[in-house]
Amino acid sequence: MADPASPVTNFARLYHLPHVVIIGGGFAGIAAARGLANRRVRVTIIDRHNFHTFLPLLYQVATAGLEPADIAYPIRTIFGHAPNIHFRHGAVRALDHERRIVVLADGTEIEYNHVVVATGATAAFFGVPGASTHALPLYTLADARRLRNRLLLALEDADARAEFGPVALTFVVVGGGPTGVETAGALSELIKITIRRDGLRLDPTMVRVVLVDLSTRLLAAFPERASSYAARELTRMGVKIQFDRSVVEVGANHLVFADGERLETTAVVWAAGLTVADTLAGTLSATSGPGGRVPVEADLRVVGSADVWAVGDAAAVAARGGGYYPQLAPMAIQSGRHGARQILRVLDGQATTAFRYRNKGIMATIGRRAAVAKLPHAGVVTGTLGWLAWLGLHLFYLVGFRNRLRVMINWTWRYFDWPSGPRLIVADAETAE
Amino acid sequence: MADPASPVTNFARLYHLPHVVIIGGGFAGIAAARGLANRRVRVTIIDRHNFHTFLPLLYQVATAGLEPADIAYPIRTIFGHAPNIHFRHGAVRALDHERRIVVLADGTEIEYNHVVVATGATAAFFGVPGASTHALPLYTLADARRLRNRLLLALEDADARAEFGPVALTFVVVGGGPTGVETAGALSELIKITIRRDGLRLDPTMVRVVLVDLSTRLLAAFPERASSYAARELTRMGVKIQFDRSVVEVGANHLVFADGERLETTAVVWAAGLTVADTLAGTLSATSGPGGRVPVEADLRVVGSADVWAVGDAAAVAARGGGYYPQLAPMAIQSGRHGARQILRVLDGQATTAFRYRNKGIMATIGRRAAVAKLPHAGVVTGTLGWLAWLGLHLFYLVGFRNRLRVMINWTWRYFDWPSGPRLIVADAETAE
Repeated sequence: MADPASPVTNFARLYHLPHVVIIGGGFAGIAAARGLANRRVRVTIIDRHNFHTFLPLLYQVATAGLEPADIAYPIRTIFGHAPNIHFRHGAVRALDHERRIVVLADGTEIEYNHVVVATGATAAFFGVPGASTHALPLYTLADARRLRNRLLLALEDADARAEFGPVALTFVVVGGGPTGVETAGALSELIKITIRRDGLRLDPTMVRVVLVDLSTRLLAAFPERASSYAARELTRMGVKIQFDRSVVEVGANHLVFADGERLETTAVVWAAGLTVADTLAGTLSATSGPGGRVPVEADLRVVGSADVWAVGDAAAVAARGGGYYPQLAPMAIQSGRHGARQILRVLDGQATTAFRYRNKGIMATIGRRAAVAKLPHAGVVTGTLGWLAWLGLHLFYLVGFRNRLRVMINWTWRYFDWPSGPRLIVADAETAE
Repeated sequence: MADPASPVTNFARLYHLPHVVIIGGGFAGIAAARGLANRRVRVTIIDRHNFHTFLPLLYQVATAGLEPADIAYPIRTIFGHAPNIHFRHGAVRALDHERRIVVLADGTEIEYNHVVVATGATAAFFGVPGASTHALPLYTLADARRLRNRLLLALEDADARAEFGPVALTFVVVGGGPTGVETAGALSELIKITIRRDGLRLDPTMVRVVLVDLSTRLLAAFPERASSYAARELTRMGVKIQFDRSVVEVGANHLVFADGERLETTAVVWAAGLTVADTLAGTLSATSGPGGRVPVEADLRVVGSADVWAVGDAAAVAARGGGYYPQLAPMAIQSGRHGARQILRVLDGQATTAFRYRNKGIMATIGRRAAVAKLPHAGVVTGTLGWLAWLGLHLFYLVGFRNRLRVMINWTWRYFDWPSGPRLIVADAETAE
């Protein structure tokens, strides 16, 4: 007989409760599950990965400032003390509204009473030829590892070629939003550290980081003052900023701009935007919001549905003042939490309430002691103060004390340029050069 | 003009010096390079990986107690302050004795005055059908990541199947040497933690770890007392030990013993031994020592060669009392150091000296507060004292303060069974399901 306190028995005891299936273990999915922990429902949270990824620090993994494990946390462990929450490792193939069933890639069918779609978004390539093949997006931990391996391999390769003459490298970051700005800054730091600390035989003036954007300023969601501060700081760090540039083709070692100019590239980082179009959420509704997002009612139910909810980056939530709420971590957390509360209300026979986004501000870091924050009531904060605010908030929101400790150690090493730091090329497949 | 203090200029300044090429950045190669740092030679150290791996803790990465980055250290960083040592990332295809050239996989030819072969060994499958395809060896960081992903995926899969009825799992470790004993113990701990902490719906009595060995005792290199202690401790932890068992076939989900018995398996860890036969070192000599190792003279020169040296696991060094010295970390470090000293002597026109291995003892850990150490003059130490000695020595020998700090954090978490720990399934390729 099984132990009466075992997970097997515990879970079986809950079979009579309504079943809520949450698809996706990002900020929104985790917040939704937390809102249902230890309540009178049975919850299954499904994700392709067995861990939650802290996306705001992804660019630091890509630029070898942090380790993958520093920003990832096992989903099972988050809910270790909530016996009504169960994690299922797998990819979702389809949602069958009629039969109220989630179908997994391996064919398993999971019945639900309510389903929360928290599947996030993916990189938007806007149909630019070659972009999805050759440019490197930055939206998953696997993306970050791939980009890091690519950057470090390019530097190793350049060092080997330096034996025969000077080598020029051009790293291009496409997109001047927070991800593009943060990646360009961190990449520029990585190059300086590897030349100074790791003895790479490269001339720093011949290794360029170019940040290109469609518009005429960086960080479009921030006030003008923050944009010019970011541009000034990046330029000071050696990043070349090119505005008004539209990329129309990406190749293995080049890209082409709309004006016909061709640029030889070492690697292209794609931080140009997000889309939901190709994901499960993109199939939920006949119409779609900006970036392919699923239109939802004020209570976050998918338009036209009684038991399908959409939260986080996947959902197009109409904002009070017109337009839609932005795809940000605080928005994902708040909407996930709201969705959970509404499901409990529906199950209790109560009326649902409208979601209301509480603006927590936005921030982006540029480099050592340089960051920019726009706080809801305090205006724009830049420089060391902005950077300290950025550090503190990111440490605070990171899941798990162990990860916080490890991130602090890695940040300390990077800040002082101490030797080491996780500049490792670790691939699954062993390649012979 | 290039900066006169830049790595480019520094390295060019050394071109007139004799060139020593070291193949391999393991214990032996790093020790050899350290012995040549800041001396009147130019050194190129070549490795397929840009990092040195601390192999004694590999099994902890495989069983999700440590992160890959905790036991890996960038080779460039180790020699950041030695301008005469240069790292070359690449795989070696061949050694051309006549032309004194090392040929890389990409075709690059590197001339040498002396070459040190420190290429280590690989898993020996002894021609057992299916073993190289289905069994999981543990000799590189990639091996450890692959094994970890396989173990964690097997547990996830079992949890999903537990919905429909009880699930039995059988993990088999082949080989009762230190790697096999340490892996079996750590695997048994991992299973307990995931069931207790991560809420896996598995009955612990149905998840078996089986350790099989050809002989009639574990840890054959240790005294009898240590062997029986290890067997007792492992048994207490729930590991099933089977002696006198020879594996003759390994399949995707089974293995077959010499007596015809078939065992259904979830995963097979291969810790049965090492060989040098298929590596570059295996091609250096017409004859070979035990495990395909290259026979060397007393001064560590490859037999019949004036400028090719072999050190570490790749070399068969005749022991004073007959037989050969063992393939252990202290042996690799001492032989690498000795090889470097001899090269300097030869370049100085001095006679070489014979290598002499100083026995530092051997140790293996079994689990929490259970380890066994055989020290040269103190006999066998077991239990908590052995375990503390093991912890201290491994921390001491780990490269880099940052890695020591991170390992200590991870060990603390594991010791107290605190939540989290790096139980992440991170693969390069995104797989659906």
